Amino acid sequence: MVQLRMALAQLNPIVGDLTGNAELIIEATRKAADAGAHVVVTSEMALTGYPVEDLVLRDTFVRASAAALDSLAARLHEAGCGDVLTYVSYLDADDVGPRDAAAALYRGEVVARQYKHHLPNYGVFDEYRYFKPGQTLDVVRLHGIDIGMVICEDIWQDGGPISALGEAGVDLVVAPNASPYERSKDEQRLPLAARRAREAGAPLAYCNQVGGQDDLVFDGDSFVVDADGTVLARAPQFTEHLLVVDLDLPTGTSHAAGVFAGLDVRRTVISDEPLPAYQPRPSPPLAEPLSDPAEVWSALVMGLRDYVRKNGFRSVIFGFSGGIDSAVSAAIAVDALGPDAVYGVSMPSKYSSEHSQSDAAELARRLGCHFRVEPVADMVQSYVGQLELSGLAEENVQARVRGVLLMALSNKEGHLVLATGNKTEIAVGYSTMYGDAVGAFAPIKDVFKTHVWELARWRNDAAQQRGETPPIPENSITKPPSAELRPDQLDTDSLPDYALLDDILDDYVEGDRGFADLLAQGFDPALIDRVVRMVDVAEYKRRQYPPGTKITFKAFGRDRRLPLTNRWRETH
Amino acid sequence: MVQLRMALAQLNPIVGDLTGNAELIIEATRKAADAGAHVVVTSEMALTGYPVEDLVLRDTFVRASAAALDSLAARLHEAGCGDVLTYVSYLDADDVGPRDAAAALYRGEVVARQYKHHLPNYGVFDEYRYFKPGQTLDVVRLHGIDIGMVICEDIWQDGGPISALGEAGVDLVVAPNASPYERSKDEQRLPLAARRAREAGAPLAYCNQVGGQDDLVFDGDSFVVDADGTVLARAPQFTEHLLVVDLDLPTGTSHAAGVFAGLDVRRTVISDEPLPAYQPRPSPPLAEPLSDPAEVWSALVMGLRDYVRKNGFRSVIFGFSGGIDSAVSAAIAVDALGPDAVYGVSMPSKYSSEHSQSDAAELARRLGCHFRVEPVADMVQSYVGQLELSGLAEENVQARVRGVLLMALSNKEGHLVLATGNKTEIAVGYSTMYGDAVGAFAPIKDVFKTHVWELARWRNDAAQQRGETPPIPENSITKPPSAELRPDQLDTDSLPDYALLDDILDDYVEGDRGFADLLAQGFDPALIDRVVRMVDVAEYKRRQYPPGTKITFKAFGRDRRLPLTNRWRETH
Repeated sequence: MVQLRMALAQLNPIVGDLTGNAELIIEATRKAADAGAHVVVTSEMALTGYPVEDLVLRDTFVRASAAALDSLAARLHEAGCGDVLTYVSYLDADDVGPRDAAAALYRGEVVARQYKHHLPNYGVFDEYRYFKPGQTLDVVRLHGIDIGMVICEDIWQDGGPISALGEAGVDLVVAPNASPYERSKDEQRLPLAARRAREAGAPLAYCNQVGGQDDLVFDGDSFVVDADGTVLARAPQFTEHLLVVDLDLPTGTSHAAGVFAGLDVRRTVISDEPLPAYQPRPSPPLAEPLSDPAEVWSALVMGLRDYVRKNGFRSVIFGFSGGIDSAVSAAIAVDALGPDAVYGVSMPSKYSSEHSQSDAAELARRLGCHFRVEPVADMVQSYVGQLELSGLAEENVQARVRGVLLMALSNKEGHLVLATGNKTEIAVGYSTMYGDAVGAFAPIKDVFKTHVWELARWRNDAAQQRGETPPIPENSITKPPSAELRPDQLDTDSLPDYALLDDILDDYVEGDRGFADLLAQGFDPALIDRVVRMVDVAEYKRRQYPPGTKITFKAFGRDRRLPLTNRWRETH
Repeated sequence: MVQLRMALAQLNPIVGDLTGNAELIIEATRKAADAGAHVVVTSEMALTGYPVEDLVLRDTFVRASAAALDSLAARLHEAGCGDVLTYVSYLDADDVGPRDAAAALYRGEVVARQYKHHLPNYGVFDEYRYFKPGQTLDVVRLHGIDIGMVICEDIWQDGGPISALGEAGVDLVVAPNASPYERSKDEQRLPLAARRAREAGAPLAYCNQVGGQDDLVFDGDSFVVDADGTVLARAPQFTEHLLVVDLDLPTGTSHAAGVFAGLDVRRTVISDEPLPAYQPRPSPPLAEPLSDPAEVWSALVMGLRDYVRKNGFRSVIFGFSGGIDSAVSAAIAVDALGPDAVYGVSMPSKYSSEHSQSDAAELARRLGCHFRVEPVADMVQSYVGQLELSGLAEENVQARVRGVLLMALSNKEGHLVLATGNKTEIAVGYSTMYGDAVGAFAPIKDVFKTHVWELARWRNDAAQQRGETPPIPENSITKPPSAELRPDQLDTDSLPDYALLDDILDDYVEGDRGFADLLAQGFDPALIDRVVRMVDVAEYKRRQYPPGTKITFKAFGRDRRLPLTNRWRETH
């Protein structure tokens, strides 16, 4: 058995910020070296951030990334971390085309370099658009330990790199990842990695990106599993973390170069000599997986915080309607940015209820955020009078006046505007374009209405358990939802009961199920017909909605692409 | 030599409309049969329309498409077209996955079925997301003539299906296509098809889709090239057309089944007997390629018309500012939909010039479209007064009030709202979100400002040559462009000269060129820096802009995907 101390640097890079991301890697590696680590692993594309999308098509960016890697190798060495074998993933290109690459840096040099083999091209992934697949595997021997490498999707597909490493023989596998968060995804990831470790016959160190990037959020949750699938170490979700773990590795099995499972396995030897025996550090405690609502809440908080901060904003502004959606959005915003960065605006019209204003004020009081009241009656009247509006046109003008008002305050004061719509209303088109859909980010865009209520209750309970004031007024949770755009309006005038509606949407949107499947689930055919039509015709509105943190498989964003002009109806 | 009469059915399907598209195919095939055609070719995915995007992921749709093909085969037979060998492309799936398929229908049966081999995954194409590549080639012998088939991208890639058909031996190749229009694309397509015909050693019949589909427009331009590359027949662009052509084909070379160029060539014999000699029809005149501005104008007209009509609208409404962008948009709209379907609104604010109103009125008079004046001063004042706005916030409120006003009229009267921004201002972010960017479609979204002026002059000249009134007032073409959101404002206060700006944008946006390349072109470094920064920070605005007809390689739409959160700057 041979000892090795490794560190997984779970970092939060900013896409395109080669300089800043290199700094993050250097700082983490220096800390790892101080902790005595011999090997450091970073996440997929840590140097560029992930995903870089069409920046791949710009030669200058590709060249800058490759140059930044060389410079990073030199700077790590200068910083006294040269003897730490550091795995850094980045964007590269060769004669064949652009590559999702990872390199092993040692004493100022790139000692090994490998390209991702499996290129995901489903859901949010478009990697066939960007990259060419790799055909080689680079195994580096350090202190007598043979370390193989796989990049992200390489562990999600059967066969290929893991099989090749298993056949060729390695003592350890490092796996840089950029695996976007989805609700309960860790239930898939960990068993999968355990299986791959068994297939490779070696421990697997899985290092994932953390942080928000547009509508994606990466949860981290980096870990090391042993060759038998046992979890040896696990980092917390939704925070930067340096996970340092001591390994005790069996060596001496047959280790060969050559072609295995169709891939060319190359071997590089840095050192054959095992490390002299040393006192291992106590194992870090395994990070406890978060509960489902805590995990979702953390994703929404991190998604919003990173979108606002990485885009150079310091504060957010949005309508406080007294309803549940704006209340939950406000609680998320305060958790993400602090109360002093959150500006709530109550914008009563002549149809607004008394409680809409008092609940909004109470929300602001509980959160300790900024709050003001700007009535919209005069502005609305100027349109309604001049254009002689009534009905839907009058309803929409109220929502649009509020949008213009928020944008004016944003222009005047520099806040980023949030849209507070939930997934249910976005799915069925129960929103006003250029009205309540105004905003640069939509925190609960991927949260169904029934889930919004659950999160509100969970967040209030969590506050209560910590002896804090529950942030969300009880009345915002319990009162029947209303857009308040005409007298005595209720959501249920236009929509089915939310519990039933969300059930159908979950099947139709998330599951891509058709009419017959929905019928088989026991839903009423007229109701299916009604919901399916609403969803189908609302495609354009969803396309215009601002981005928002994705927490499900089929969020409305880049992972769901339908034609706007489209006559297909499930109910045909 | 053996005779054959073939027809290329250049149709305008609607995505998802299996029933309607089948009707189009039946009608075209019946007409072709009446004209004595023995073979009919339709465009790629003619039965579903192209592209169907994520409808591929819905099993019910895939099954419906496959069922619609069987039903179509039967209905063609019932309609008396059974003896016409009809090639129909559609969506299918087998055990491997979804397929971009084409089938040969004869006497009510599917006699051959082939899957697309090369799956494009660049620009607007995402076919690796949807399809599995085919491995077989189906050659059908009709009247002793061996007919091979390739689907769209199969002719754009070297090697593969065309090589295999050339080696195996065929007398004729049919090629269903859905090749989106780009400016001057026919200069690539025709020489390419000629080269492929030579490689296959047989004439190639290229049938392309025609019509608008969201931001794509398909120009048709179907043709037949002889084995030596000579153009035998050519259909006009931007219109449905049935191109009937008599061929006289050499046969009797070695024709084998088996594996060629790695693909399995299968052979089906319908009939060995050549047709009795018949009197060929006179060759149809070759459609003349359109001039560059005529081609672009036709694309913009068809793109708008199909977006409006296929989405069930009958009229459009938008601001008539007196400027060149709204004037050109109006002329396109009238050409697309007729004057009675076009509603212009002049919305003067206190900063609007006298000529902005008179030029708008003159435009409406020349076009014969609807026109009204709705001053916005009172509405603007209600925000400016209550929120104490000035500067940019006040400028933007004017644009946003106009957006709300147009949407209110749309809600009240049922028109689809157009956004009239051009590519230059969208590229640099010189527009107001939820203001002049309001609309469901943006006809000149992909046209640079200098090109807008060129099109205006061309359209006026064309009218003059036909003895008609030039639609666009001369003053709208010649006056210096202004947003008129503050006193004496000119575009040149905020932007470089448009000729220079468009030159840089053409390199930076279309060419994906970096700072060094732009410098080498001779542009001033400070100017490059300024333009590049404007473009980079405007990404979010562009993402929120409505779709508009794509006429260049890098339109702002699905073919250009950049991260919103992104710190990469070319000028670093």
